[in-house]
Amino acid sequence: MSESNMNGIIDSIMESYSQYPVSPLQYKCQLPSRITVIEITNKLRELIFPGYVSGKTLEIETLQYYIGELILGVKDKLIDQITTALLREACSYGDPENGCEKKLAKRAENICCAFLQAVPKLREYIAADVQAAYDGDPAALDKDQIIASYPGIFAICVYRIAHEFLKLGVPYIPRIMTEYAHNETGIDIHPGAEIGMNFFIDHGTGVVIGETCVIGNNVKIYQGVTLGALSTRGGRSLHNVKRHPTIENNVTIYSGATVLGGNTVIGSDSVIGGGVFITKSTESNMRVSLKAPELEYN
Amino acid sequence: MSESNMNGIIDSIMESYSQYPVSPLQYKCQLPSRITVIEITNKLRELIFPGYVSGKTLEIETLQYYIGELILGVKDKLIDQITTALLREACSYGDPENGCEKKLAKRAENICCAFLQAVPKLREYIAADVQAAYDGDPAALDKDQIIASYPGIFAICVYRIAHEFLKLGVPYIPRIMTEYAHNETGIDIHPGAEIGMNFFIDHGTGVVIGETCVIGNNVKIYQGVTLGALSTRGGRSLHNVKRHPTIENNVTIYSGATVLGGNTVIGSDSVIGGGVFITKSTESNMRVSLKAPELEYN
Amino acid sequence: MSESNMNGIIDSIMESYSQYPVSPLQYKCQLPSRITVIEITNKLRELIFPGYVSGKTLEIETLQYYIGELILGVKDKLIDQITTALLREACSYGDPENGCEKKLAKRAENICCAFLQAVPKLREYIAADVQAAYDGDPAALDKDQIIASYPGIFAICVYRIAHEFLKLGVPYIPRIMTEYAHNETGIDIHPGAEIGMNFFIDHGTGVVIGETCVIGNNVKIYQGVTLGALSTRGGRSLHNVKRHPTIENNVTIYSGATVLGGNTVIGSDSVIGGGVFITKSTESNMRVSLKAPELEYN
Repeated sequence: MSESNMNGIIDSIMESYSQYPVSPLQYKCQLPSRITVIEITNKLRELIFPGYVSGKTLEIETLQYYIGELILGVKDKLIDQITTALLREACSYGDPENGCEKKLAKRAENICCAFLQAVPKLREYIAADVQAAYDGDPAALDKDQIIASYPGIFAICVYRIAHEFLKLGVPYIPRIMTEYAHNETGIDIHPGAEIGMNFFIDHGTGVVIGETCVIGNNVKIYQGVTLGALSTRGGRSLHNVKRHPTIENNVTIYSGATVLGGNTVIGSDSVIGGGVFITKSTESNMRVSLKAPELEYN
Repeated sequence: MSESNMNGIIDSIMESYSQYPVSPLQYKCQLPSRITVIEITNKLRELIFPGYVSGKTLEIETLQYYIGELILGVKDKLIDQITTALLREACSYGDPENGCEKKLAKRAENICCAFLQAVPKLREYIAADVQAAYDGDPAALDKDQIIASYPGIFAICVYRIAHEFLKLGVPYIPRIMTEYAHNETGIDIHPGAEIGMNFFIDHGTGVVIGETCVIGNNVKIYQGVTLGALSTRGGRSLHNVKRHPTIENNVTIYSGATVLGGNTVIGSDSVIGGGVFITKSTESNMRVSLKAPELEYN
Repeated sequence: MSESNMNGIIDSIMESYSQYPVSPLQYKCQLPSRITVIEITNKLRELIFPGYVSGKTLEIETLQYYIGELILGVKDKLIDQITTALLREACSYGDPENGCEKKLAKRAENICCAFLQAVPKLREYIAADVQAAYDGDPAALDKDQIIASYPGIFAICVYRIAHEFLKLGVPYIPRIMTEYAHNETGIDIHPGAEIGMNFFIDHGTGVVIGETCVIGNNVKIYQGVTLGALSTRGGRSLHNVKRHPTIENNVTIYSGATVLGGNTVIGSDSVIGGGVFITKSTESNMRVSLKAPELEYN
């Protein structure tokens, strides 16, 4: 490639950046770093399940120091990324705080502190999720195996971490976290969804749980289940509108079932069969299944 | 393990390589390196969306130098991998060029140059895909979030890069690229598919878009959608035959729907509902949905 | 964050570890390391398909030394991880061998040796799987492309390795291996499943093959196919019970089909159509498809 050729190419690409800017802000207020957010996510998973993520041998006697080190190692990166996210949000929405990085850094520190204080509560929830997986999957050897290798627990753990940050007002980062879990597991849980205790996702590939879902306690979901919106033709006007279903307590939804709509409520203690397609509410204690296997044999 | 044990094992594995050779060529003409092709793919993604993939802070003033460095850093690896792929193809198909590595290296350089010249056009398409995602997903905060974390944009961007290389006559590498995106996102787009502007894939896990699909402009596709072949019983005799459907402009296909067959055309401005299974053409302006939710409640 | 703040956080997290211990054993008998098991898996894949995984140029003349080095490089890590897994199992189940690490290390060495002796047999099976993929996919350029980039072959190869370790009595590690393949490909094959020769999975995202499945020879499966359990309400009482179907020889199952139940047998030479939902056995030579596309056009 000749030098003039090369210069021509660079010029035309530079022109393209002006003509089709992906965002006018992209060179000003940076996004959080996906790589760093993933690193933080895995350190927080290690904090939830010490030893499981790192693969390190831990001793109960020195655990406290290990945990201290772990927190010290993640804290500054976390505050830094949250600051970046808040600054970026301020840039995007013309917030009067725009540019006031120092103030945002203080807010980020408070958020980080609040998150760490919530870790015991998070552990309570996630320990219950692990128990639900153990109770629900006859193939499981023991709970450690579930923590070490089940994609459902990976996705739920990352979701619970991300949801906590979302509740604390952190933009961008929660979605980067859950999309990381989506990449790893094929399970797509929006950080905005509300999910109760003892939640179990088996196999999980293809599961989609939308932003405005509300899910009760003791819910079991299998691979390929969509809890989605009826239609998105409304586009951006639907931002912040409840578009996804409510699943009450003790509901099981088998593989490939689809439940759509913001007004759709699946009543408690129900079982939704595999492949079922639902767009209306159902009462409690229902068993919903495909009426007849409409098959042709020949 | 004793030495004789070890020698016995090595001998029997060596014998297995003769008895069940995976390919007679495998030690002669190398395949492109998957690891290097993935590295190249991510550098080309960075070229399309500077700063988003690397997570680096960029300044508009020095962007030109950054882009220059980026191209210099990827160019030789790219030419090298394309040369390997062309040489391998020549080996496999007994092309008279076989062995003429110098000639193939020159061709690879021309292809690399042609690809870089096509980057502005690619950016035009991908910027429009990002806009389509923003318009179509009420949960999106802004376009930067889409670029930074949406699997649909990841898969479409890699597909558009791979498709360009395929059009330029590069073997092996395009499929390695799209299978990388498939691994990352669960979205399997064959590099041979033809896809128009403003293409949006939401959630995406389980989407399959076959080799001979033709997709128009403004098409929206949800998770679990298959645009596939009716049957592959014809096996290798179907190589290069149109086996996958045509989707005209402004069509939306909801989650889990399946459209099969090379003669199947979904007419423009249609909506295909969730879970629908289609093997015949439909006219324009149709709304196709599951007739009745054939469910049993008890 | 003040020091007292930090200390308070560490104390409450430490308390949480006591209150919601994920496992009483977690600091005593370690689990196998997921990272090391993945590293081993990829070295064993390289042993099956030398050059394809590493991307190295190999010469037939020096292949024997390369293979020797490869085995030496993986052997000790493998024995170490198997020992860890056996020790952990002994801890969990109060086995009298508990603590007798030396004895378990010897057993681990024997298992490693037996595995390596089985590699030629594994290669025979996997070479046949590659041939089945080539015969079954009209889009394939050649068999090398299949080995280098098809997720189906990745998942089947890892499953066959994991299944061999499972048969040799190794706990934990087989599932870590297949969950790694699940992460990479969206294909979830339990290492306990029994699968015959010439097995082909196309596209594959969302495929689930349960622990007690029995699959014959020449079976083809497409994306989104579930071979699962009818219900898991029995929970832990179903451990080791046959809960998943039997698929006889020469069966093709198209995308999104679901076959459930431990007593369900799909008879040989049958074709199960896309989206079909089956919970009862079918005879040989059947073609089962959705009766009528129950669609509403408007």
